[in-house]
Amino acid sequence: MYNHVPKNYECPICLAVAGVENEDTMIKQDDIFYRDDLVMALINSKFVGNNPGHAIVVPLKHYENLYDLPEKEANKIIKVAKAVAIAMKRVRKCDGVMIQQNNEPASEQHAFHYHMHIFPRFNDDGLLNKLSDVRVSKSEERRIFAAALREHFMPM
Amino acid sequence: MYNHVPKNYECPICLAVAGVENEDTMIKQDDIFYRDDLVMALINSKFVGNNPGHAIVVPLKHYENLYDLPEKEANKIIKVAKAVAIAMKRVRKCDGVMIQQNNEPASEQHAFHYHMHIFPRFNDDGLLNKLSDVRVSKSEERRIFAAALREHFMPM
Repeated sequence: MYNHVPKNYECPICLAVAGVENEDTMIKQDDIFYRDDLVMALINSKFVGNNPGHAIVVPLKHYENLYDLPEKEANKIIKVAKAVAIAMKRVRKCDGVMIQQNNEPASEQHAFHYHMHIFPRFNDDGLLNKLSDVRVSKSEERRIFAAALREHFMPM
Repeated sequence: MYNHVPKNYECPICLAVAGVENEDTMIKQDDIFYRDDLVMALINSKFVGNNPGHAIVVPLKHYENLYDLPEKEANKIIKVAKAVAIAMKRVRKCDGVMIQQNNEPASEQHAFHYHMHIFPRFNDDGLLNKLSDVRVSKSEERRIFAAALREHFMPM
């Protein structure tokens, strides 16, 4: 319900799930640091403010937003988000973790496949005033963050 | 782990769970629009930007943050958050819904009891640049939003 996906949308997250790297997706397979039968976690292509290298958790199947997300996927997403948050504390030595999840264009949802953002937070990083300060990262930058999280990800 | 709760903290959310209304909590019982055996949903005491009357979902038991949140509560929280989001679409006629959840003071966590924020979003509301624009609401304002959500909350 309340869907906004354009006709013939090439979903960048579905492409990544399928292992495809091409011009329709910014995601590289090296960005992915966790995957199971329902969801995967990866470093977001876009970096925000002074908080580069934040993660997203996504269902493998295509659901556009929270309104459509089935219970099985939802449960796994919050479980993995918790594990990502704890891994981020260890790997990034961050002072806090912020979860954000946007539904529909009015809420700045750009990729029309459900994704939960997990940001490392640092004292006085000013992120709340920099959420529009977004840049496309280089895959080399993301790979380092992904490798560190992959190594410290705890079995659930 | 990673807890920041001060000694002798009078948790405003635990007081609300216990049905207490006093000077240690801004929450009134009328703010609560959903409750089951694990969680409850209520209108947040503080209103943000042009998006007044947003909701929070909280566990009934005291857990400080996502790192500590047990699976049973986590599953119920995302389930109820989805139902709140859908109810908000109906009641508030909003154009989108944003989820935010803060862990630790560096991430602007003020109440040290896990709570997931659910914001109604409107086209061009500018919320991302107004997340620091916070005011304490009046209970009369909250009661109206809570009553409308209570009426439209769908059984899960």
